[in-house]
Amino acid sequence: MTEPNVTTAIATSTASDVFIRGKSLCDELIGKVTFTEMIFWNVLGRVPTPAETAVLDACLVTLMEHGLTPSALATRLTYSSAPESMGAAVAAGLCSVGSLFVGTMDGAGVLLRRMLESSSSVEEEALRIAEEHKRERKPIPGFGHPQHKPDDPRSPKLLDVSRAHGAAGKHVAAIEALGKAIDSVYSRHITLNATGAIAAVLADIQVPYEILRGFAVIARAAGLVAHVHEEQQRSTLRAVWHAAEAAVPYAPAAPDANDPHDSE
Amino acid sequence: MTEPNVTTAIATSTASDVFIRGKSLCDELIGKVTFTEMIFWNVLGRVPTPAETAVLDACLVTLMEHGLTPSALATRLTYSSAPESMGAAVAAGLCSVGSLFVGTMDGAGVLLRRMLESSSSVEEEALRIAEEHKRERKPIPGFGHPQHKPDDPRSPKLLDVSRAHGAAGKHVAAIEALGKAIDSVYSRHITLNATGAIAAVLADIQVPYEILRGFAVIARAAGLVAHVHEEQQRSTLRAVWHAAEAAVPYAPAAPDANDPHDSE
Amino acid sequence: MTEPNVTTAIATSTASDVFIRGKSLCDELIGKVTFTEMIFWNVLGRVPTPAETAVLDACLVTLMEHGLTPSALATRLTYSSAPESMGAAVAAGLCSVGSLFVGTMDGAGVLLRRMLESSSSVEEEALRIAEEHKRERKPIPGFGHPQHKPDDPRSPKLLDVSRAHGAAGKHVAAIEALGKAIDSVYSRHITLNATGAIAAVLADIQVPYEILRGFAVIARAAGLVAHVHEEQQRSTLRAVWHAAEAAVPYAPAAPDANDPHDSE
Amino acid sequence: MTEPNVTTAIATSTASDVFIRGKSLCDELIGKVTFTEMIFWNVLGRVPTPAETAVLDACLVTLMEHGLTPSALATRLTYSSAPESMGAAVAAGLCSVGSLFVGTMDGAGVLLRRMLESSSSVEEEALRIAEEHKRERKPIPGFGHPQHKPDDPRSPKLLDVSRAHGAAGKHVAAIEALGKAIDSVYSRHITLNATGAIAAVLADIQVPYEILRGFAVIARAAGLVAHVHEEQQRSTLRAVWHAAEAAVPYAPAAPDANDPHDSE
Repeated sequence: MTEPNVTTAIATSTASDVFIRGKSLCDELIGKVTFTEMIFWNVLGRVPTPAETAVLDACLVTLMEHGLTPSALATRLTYSSAPESMGAAVAAGLCSVGSLFVGTMDGAGVLLRRMLESSSSVEEEALRIAEEHKRERKPIPGFGHPQHKPDDPRSPKLLDVSRAHGAAGKHVAAIEALGKAIDSVYSRHITLNATGAIAAVLADIQVPYEILRGFAVIARAAGLVAHVHEEQQRSTLRAVWHAAEAAVPYAPAAPDANDPHDSE
Repeated sequence: MTEPNVTTAIATSTASDVFIRGKSLCDELIGKVTFTEMIFWNVLGRVPTPAETAVLDACLVTLMEHGLTPSALATRLTYSSAPESMGAAVAAGLCSVGSLFVGTMDGAGVLLRRMLESSSSVEEEALRIAEEHKRERKPIPGFGHPQHKPDDPRSPKLLDVSRAHGAAGKHVAAIEALGKAIDSVYSRHITLNATGAIAAVLADIQVPYEILRGFAVIARAAGLVAHVHEEQQRSTLRAVWHAAEAAVPYAPAAPDANDPHDSE
Repeated sequence: MTEPNVTTAIATSTASDVFIRGKSLCDELIGKVTFTEMIFWNVLGRVPTPAETAVLDACLVTLMEHGLTPSALATRLTYSSAPESMGAAVAAGLCSVGSLFVGTMDGAGVLLRRMLESSSSVEEEALRIAEEHKRERKPIPGFGHPQHKPDDPRSPKLLDVSRAHGAAGKHVAAIEALGKAIDSVYSRHITLNATGAIAAVLADIQVPYEILRGFAVIARAAGLVAHVHEEQQRSTLRAVWHAAEAAVPYAPAAPDANDPHDSE
Repeated sequence: MTEPNVTTAIATSTASDVFIRGKSLCDELIGKVTFTEMIFWNVLGRVPTPAETAVLDACLVTLMEHGLTPSALATRLTYSSAPESMGAAVAAGLCSVGSLFVGTMDGAGVLLRRMLESSSSVEEEALRIAEEHKRERKPIPGFGHPQHKPDDPRSPKLLDVSRAHGAAGKHVAAIEALGKAIDSVYSRHITLNATGAIAAVLADIQVPYEILRGFAVIARAAGLVAHVHEEQQRSTLRAVWHAAEAAVPYAPAAPDANDPHDSE
């Protein structure tokens, strides 16, 4: 079976250097760029402008930490059960960075694209989206938050950073148009949440929709290391474990009347 | 069973803000600090000086990417097999950030501590360490590299950054003393590698030994997202899979003479 | 915030025993039931009949091993990079048990349900399904296999086991009706594959559709342990790594003309 | 760089079959062997005798389930956060199958080997082991249990199964000798726990020490699927999350007096 010729543009190494997307790690990157600039370069293959770096920094800072989330709990339980593998502990936490918590970033990206590629105006398409979701009683990705209400305090900060650096463009405009349409259609205010704001400000610095979620993964990995370090200092394993057992008591179902083993 | 009272100093959230180690995410962090400063603050609970930020940036930039490593391959194979879960794909790659690849950072930390806590001089303890490892034919954590030889080009760059910011102290001095002792005891040059240099420069900015490896986990998570993004554009799944099958052909063992099922 | 009262019916333990779904581990399970019977009991909460055990055994045996798959490669690369954590190595492999490889089991379950809940006959609904997929050029979950063609040899064996134990019912009948409809609509033979056959035979022993995939996870975990053990005896890490690097060479993209750092 | 020639003895596939360690999956395995026999064959490359199958069944049944353990909690939190990936949810749980919970199996294996390879008698070496551990105040792998005391009820059941099938040999004798030595040296009874008993009974059916832990991984993967299925029926996510937050309240450290950002 012949394979298509595939190549990687990311990195190669020689005895005397590592080349990352064509730049020398030792001569052009170490000591020359920040971690955020390096992330932009390595993931997107483009050197960020200072404005782009500022926007990405703001997003990564926003996404990094939210306390004892399910993901942080998974990492902490894993680390204190198997401290020999810090990588596996962070891995356990990243397995839950999925649809419920950050997946809405992708969904918000889909809506942004739809508004901007529509043959109608952004405002008309926004109204159509709001009406569809209301009719089908579906949550709108990027809007609403169980705890941060009436307003998610992170969203205006993210839009402020984007505007202050001249990095806000058509995606920020579109998400704001969608916010207005939603308030009008639902006759009440539903907050733009942090993942919705991040989708917009990153799309305005040309981050492709499909990799948006990757920045949440990076930021959360860093946050999870903070939880590992706290677990090293004072383990919460037994406190969490016993609290969980108390919160979810054992209550077996009624016996199985047709147990073929009973007649043995 | 009574539990010890445990608390977390990391984060809590209210309807109108998130507080991270006592700072307001919205008023004091978003748009005010870089991702690297946020990592330092969240993991270590201390605001970094500009010199500390520069050293941490250099370490994270160094550790982020090394091409198609086993860890990158695990992430790429996983993502292209199960693209519904980007978090799980990065998780698969982080599971291999362990003893063979970055674990030497911990081992180098142990040696640094031993030299600095010794009742002998650093130089004497360094000679003792080199002699022990030579006698027991054990690799010295933080020294030697299969590909980057005679010298790992990343190590002097890291030490340069540390010195340029006035952040080099007793740990950098100790790792250099150990390098000299090794060359003398083995009668040949063995390079200080990147993990050894990172252990020293991070220890000199008061990063506790036990969390050193966490910074490798953070940096590698970011590098793995770059591989996910490339995999989105052109999957290497079949090329890698078929190359692996060709490199490791099937050769069954001789039949089992005592197979009890054969006589059925 | 009040929580709903949730309980677990799975297990609890005392100083002198463990109770699993109401049975004593020590008095009723160890030495009394096979692993397969225990899996059925623990996952589904019902003691299997001998026929149900035979069908589940056949499915687990079928799903366990398929050589150097992406999932096995991820486990092997991880184990040889971080041998301190066997659990993490198997975990890395399980992260890729997703949509591409076993996810079709769920999709086949959805089609089975649709045929059996239809107001038309099974045969009519089967034709409708085949026509829809052909028109939309979509693969039909449970049918077709890139390597096992014209026929997946595992599927008839699975149906044979199900029939031999009198466990084949309406789901097996429905998947066969769907196979006939597909061949007729596409005017060529498309094989029922192993995941399609497993969805049908497990559904006929009352395994709920949503947990079908769990049995693939169990079986694959066992297969991955075999790969760990072989890796312990002779590591394939370097052979696979170097084969992958050769198969996916480095080819950096053209330099970025607008690099703001170039003008510094 | 030339690679050593490595091969795999596990599996290969053709269009019309899959061969696993030389046996035809379709003709010799599906419908012919149980899952437990298949595990033995695939992992160890040897067809088990009925006695060996019975012992392995007893071990897998014993290890499968222990209620809301840290590992089960990690899986449940992950599944309910990211239900799109059941494989990743089980993976998150397996990441904690490590030193604290099942790693003692390996340690018990090391002690068994030491007793059996000693130039002294088993009894003398057992006394020496007990004395060393007492002097160094180290726990003895395979002995003691925080909850199951004075006696772990699973251990005698496992030894019973091994004896009833004529499969108990020198390893079971050695672990019992070690138990007697411990009680004598410590002047109190310390229970043989399940992992100690499993190490002995599996070693007596020629399972290599280094793969013992793999059977815990297999059994736990199956148990974790039971927790996924219960989570599908009634999610415990919010109950566990909120119980954990209540058990581990937020208490930030005192402010950092040297914050360089304060002077900005």
